[in-house]
Amino acid sequence: MPPITIDLYSDNAAPAAPEIMAALARVNVGPAQPYGQDAESKALKTTFSDLFGTEVWVMPVSTGTAANSIALSALTPPYGTILCSDTAHIETSECGATELFSGGAKLTHVAAKSGRMSADALDEVIRRAGKGLQHRSQPAAVSLTIGTERGTVYPVSEIARIGEVARKHGLHFRMDGARVANALVALGTSPRSVTSDLDLDVLSFGATKNGTLNAEAIVVFRKDIAEQLRYRLRRAGQVWSKMRYGAAQLNAYIEGGLWLRLAAQANGAAKRLSEGLRQVPGVRLIETVEINQLFAEMPEKVIAGLEADGIGLGRRDEGVRMVTACCTTTEEVDHVVGRARLHGGVGLGPFS
Amino acid sequence: MPPITIDLYSDNAAPAAPEIMAALARVNVGPAQPYGQDAESKALKTTFSDLFGTEVWVMPVSTGTAANSIALSALTPPYGTILCSDTAHIETSECGATELFSGGAKLTHVAAKSGRMSADALDEVIRRAGKGLQHRSQPAAVSLTIGTERGTVYPVSEIARIGEVARKHGLHFRMDGARVANALVALGTSPRSVTSDLDLDVLSFGATKNGTLNAEAIVVFRKDIAEQLRYRLRRAGQVWSKMRYGAAQLNAYIEGGLWLRLAAQANGAAKRLSEGLRQVPGVRLIETVEINQLFAEMPEKVIAGLEADGIGLGRRDEGVRMVTACCTTTEEVDHVVGRARLHGGVGLGPFS
Amino acid sequence: MPPITIDLYSDNAAPAAPEIMAALARVNVGPAQPYGQDAESKALKTTFSDLFGTEVWVMPVSTGTAANSIALSALTPPYGTILCSDTAHIETSECGATELFSGGAKLTHVAAKSGRMSADALDEVIRRAGKGLQHRSQPAAVSLTIGTERGTVYPVSEIARIGEVARKHGLHFRMDGARVANALVALGTSPRSVTSDLDLDVLSFGATKNGTLNAEAIVVFRKDIAEQLRYRLRRAGQVWSKMRYGAAQLNAYIEGGLWLRLAAQANGAAKRLSEGLRQVPGVRLIETVEINQLFAEMPEKVIAGLEADGIGLGRRDEGVRMVTACCTTTEEVDHVVGRARLHGGVGLGPFS
Amino acid sequence: MPPITIDLYSDNAAPAAPEIMAALARVNVGPAQPYGQDAESKALKTTFSDLFGTEVWVMPVSTGTAANSIALSALTPPYGTILCSDTAHIETSECGATELFSGGAKLTHVAAKSGRMSADALDEVIRRAGKGLQHRSQPAAVSLTIGTERGTVYPVSEIARIGEVARKHGLHFRMDGARVANALVALGTSPRSVTSDLDLDVLSFGATKNGTLNAEAIVVFRKDIAEQLRYRLRRAGQVWSKMRYGAAQLNAYIEGGLWLRLAAQANGAAKRLSEGLRQVPGVRLIETVEINQLFAEMPEKVIAGLEADGIGLGRRDEGVRMVTACCTTTEEVDHVVGRARLHGGVGLGPFS
Repeated sequence: MPPITIDLYSDNAAPAAPEIMAALARVNVGPAQPYGQDAESKALKTTFSDLFGTEVWVMPVSTGTAANSIALSALTPPYGTILCSDTAHIETSECGATELFSGGAKLTHVAAKSGRMSADALDEVIRRAGKGLQHRSQPAAVSLTIGTERGTVYPVSEIARIGEVARKHGLHFRMDGARVANALVALGTSPRSVTSDLDLDVLSFGATKNGTLNAEAIVVFRKDIAEQLRYRLRRAGQVWSKMRYGAAQLNAYIEGGLWLRLAAQANGAAKRLSEGLRQVPGVRLIETVEINQLFAEMPEKVIAGLEADGIGLGRRDEGVRMVTACCTTTEEVDHVVGRARLHGGVGLGPFS
Repeated sequence: MPPITIDLYSDNAAPAAPEIMAALARVNVGPAQPYGQDAESKALKTTFSDLFGTEVWVMPVSTGTAANSIALSALTPPYGTILCSDTAHIETSECGATELFSGGAKLTHVAAKSGRMSADALDEVIRRAGKGLQHRSQPAAVSLTIGTERGTVYPVSEIARIGEVARKHGLHFRMDGARVANALVALGTSPRSVTSDLDLDVLSFGATKNGTLNAEAIVVFRKDIAEQLRYRLRRAGQVWSKMRYGAAQLNAYIEGGLWLRLAAQANGAAKRLSEGLRQVPGVRLIETVEINQLFAEMPEKVIAGLEADGIGLGRRDEGVRMVTACCTTTEEVDHVVGRARLHGGVGLGPFS
Repeated sequence: MPPITIDLYSDNAAPAAPEIMAALARVNVGPAQPYGQDAESKALKTTFSDLFGTEVWVMPVSTGTAANSIALSALTPPYGTILCSDTAHIETSECGATELFSGGAKLTHVAAKSGRMSADALDEVIRRAGKGLQHRSQPAAVSLTIGTERGTVYPVSEIARIGEVARKHGLHFRMDGARVANALVALGTSPRSVTSDLDLDVLSFGATKNGTLNAEAIVVFRKDIAEQLRYRLRRAGQVWSKMRYGAAQLNAYIEGGLWLRLAAQANGAAKRLSEGLRQVPGVRLIETVEINQLFAEMPEKVIAGLEADGIGLGRRDEGVRMVTACCTTTEEVDHVVGRARLHGGVGLGPFS
Repeated sequence: MPPITIDLYSDNAAPAAPEIMAALARVNVGPAQPYGQDAESKALKTTFSDLFGTEVWVMPVSTGTAANSIALSALTPPYGTILCSDTAHIETSECGATELFSGGAKLTHVAAKSGRMSADALDEVIRRAGKGLQHRSQPAAVSLTIGTERGTVYPVSEIARIGEVARKHGLHFRMDGARVANALVALGTSPRSVTSDLDLDVLSFGATKNGTLNAEAIVVFRKDIAEQLRYRLRRAGQVWSKMRYGAAQLNAYIEGGLWLRLAAQANGAAKRLSEGLRQVPGVRLIETVEINQLFAEMPEKVIAGLEADGIGLGRRDEGVRMVTACCTTTEEVDHVVGRARLHGGVGLGPFS
């Protein structure tokens, strides 16, 4: 294989945004109190409270898995179960992190279509879950991935309905925002409209897939949860001594709407890519492309051809996954489409 | 209080070394496979295997607590106990991280003098710990902090004896190297002499206190331990997707001996500081200053005076802790000593 | 509701067998060393090793859930997953016990028909489970319930095939024997033919559903597993100080084939019950009755009528579950059938 | 060694009281709903609420370790620490059970004299424990063993003071009552005076050491704790399906004051034993004998002589532990004393 020059394997393959790098340089001056007692770290509270239109508590962590699983550990007793879609990252791709940090809670699947569970299906699963029965792990929280693992988004109205179902049953409501910026851009809505306005408890605020180096945040909307997360994060080894370097990434990420601009670029690239690829004979989009992920059936000759061109993608049973990032350019997209057309046996046409 | 301009509260208060920042910039180019499959991350194995003169497995993590506790979880069953000094960081300052990741193992204290447990005391504690008795958590591993929490180091010969005690009883042997560079400089010995030569299982390789932003490493000397740590780290939320930014810090940290130069500067500053301060009336060093930490009795007027000068230090029941860092300059040290002399009521003398 | 006089709600509703009560009286004499060091407890090893034709380690516990979950904790790392049918008791009815004792392992479902997973389906699930992928909980053990939660049994040949699948993938193989006696009677085979002959690691040896008061056993076929279970059981609060009372129940249960006679009575009663009930209009057996459990669609008037008669049964979405026990008599069965016929609108006929 | 005929190794070596055996026979009739839904189990609430003069929730369990550790898991977050004496059974003899069920909480020792921690020492340890500091496991509960592991009891006034210290710091207050009956007899006080009157949260109500076969109880004084213990016990494998056999033991144990009569016999035997033994040359009581345990220095010839006589005792570094039980007779005590005198080289005297 040649070296990969355009990597659509994952948005994690992209470098950090220049603004983020600049923020690191900016704070790398002089002493700063450790463990979040520095000015940059303290500024997070204001930055994010402004963003969500309410007081929030912000806890930087090093990975999305940490954000997800440690937050969930504050939302369920060990004898609880978390309701989530059967394609949820916490179920499929975190090696049991939620089970670890919760002390052995379970995950209960709700069948998803295109990555989305419906409020009705969720309600049905909760009603059958045995609330109050001593032999059953007790429903404790609902977890929803706003920009789904299948490249779709939940409409705001459905998020609201899912939140209502959670509350109706007395459950916590949590959002996996690994691609929250992409989802907000796709929905054209405000951060608060899908969080604080809907009485959300906790948001995993993803950033690494969209331009930071290694900083995510847990955003907490309730003080009692925040208080216990202080200790849960510390014992999880997730409280950086030199917190300023995480905080600076996150502050810069929000400042001036950078995060939304980056997500808009990624989403736009995915849309353009999908429009181009679906013209290629044998290529069929499996899911609607709503954020920055594309799932498609693709002839082997096209897949192999792209790989031979140094274009990274993710092979799946069903075909391929391609993920654009905050730095994916129009030129790169058009190059990929052009090569796919060539491998697919059509002329280069307008994309050449 | 004025802003702190010289911060001796902790070595964590220091900024990152310029070489580390440069390394981040260096790798922030183009795509890179996530989760450690990139070239920079893969280079860690060679870098560290060369350093220790044997094949090692290197796992970057975001904090020292993560390095300590997750590594220990691979060295003890849940029904085990870890032997460590009663001043060990894993016991006093990690909010139960080892208990979390191990699934409820215990820590058993060995009385320490000046931060060091003796091989004989360790042996005695193990012999009384009830090996084979069903009612007792079973001794599983010995944890030794090479540059101790009291600013001292273990002589190589004592480390060797402690390792022998561990092996004699069939226990794992682990080293907390939060300040391993400072310790090696103080001992004037090679990395391998206190690790691979002594049949060590795992080393927490500290770096953040000595010049990186937010990268530490677990260095594993046995393949079977490394294999299970792959999964333990993943579920702990400690596998960065954009691993290159952690790996680059660590590679740059080792390259050309940077880590040892940085530690030498910190150690030298602490030595100079201790020599200056002990001339101040009422100041008494509580521990021998062997690395970059200083513990001293200090009159309240001196402590308060330094604080009012914008000099950060750590108040303790016994007096103060002051910690120099890889960027602490001779000028800063002399300034601190000069101010302390002044507050202590002596002329400025030779340090003015 | 009238008091229940015939309880088919569960085999747990039955009293203990007279022989078991006699055994308690027999050992309630004089002192005995605690925690299993008494003669009665030590005799377990011989009793059960003879039974399985190989050396086994026997650990009495107070409940089936304890037997299942604690044994499994020795067969999986915390980052592992246990493969089991989607109707398995460990998944549906133990409030997350396996997740607790394993430190957060997962259960992965294999679709079952009539309570049985097929070796092929199991193989497929394991192959897709992501062995070696860092993001996935690692397949660690297969758990099979020999007398299934749906009242069926696995043929010996299928148990053998499932064991082979487990071994092929390097997994442990464990059997839930909550109703092992009933299953052996149904299969007409020896204890060893479905355990030691098939290289089983651990068996949960159920007894409480079949005549003891409160004693089950973990039977271990490998010494290394037995060794760690000593400690896992102790810290689980499952090592009785007065072990003789558990051991006496188990020894008496085996002695002279009592356990198989008791199971034969329960199985026979279920068979007779099913033959009678299926003559009742509107009653349809949902599963083949192979041991002592019966699942049937049943008209509401029949269900309500039986309940009003003081006959205990378990209502389910699908109809009813009825479970016979080691003390269920032919007279009781015939009485139940007669009443069902009456409520169903037919003459009493031959059962009256 | 000859067979042991008088076993003072532990009160666990004693058989069950005849009244307890009779209760088992009494309930072994006809069907009974499983998992505590039977009449005998439901009667526990009344029996114990009457005993403590307030509404309590009673949960039978199979061992004292289960009672202790599972109850504590409801009183501490995983990031908490339990304060207890350094001789507490939960620390020394339960193989990390509390650490397991709590998900990795710690135990913090308070130095004890003769098995008792003082309220002042406890207060000091809590004040130094770092409440609110993120790096420290947070003080969550105080655990006091009323009839201590050293054979002493706490005065009621000191229990009250310890409870006040716990409350002052916002901690839960829990009592280990492995020998609660012996302690109450020794103190000559009522059950409520040391529990509900002092705002206790949970009591481990020991019974097996004092006459039952294998039944202990968790007695809960607060509804919210009881509610979560329902699930914690279920997943711990501590909810008997045939609960009636545990409940019957406990009901019979309380009925007519049996438990106090049994304890009075054990205490009286220990007192008589101590008075006799201290006349033996070379024997010295190490602790005051207040309940049914005796700790003494004893010449090796006396120890070995008693062992050769078939008298069981516990060898310790410091000498021996001897524990009388609810069935220990005056004749047995006098026989032991007589033999000790003989081995110690004095005439048989009045005890012969």
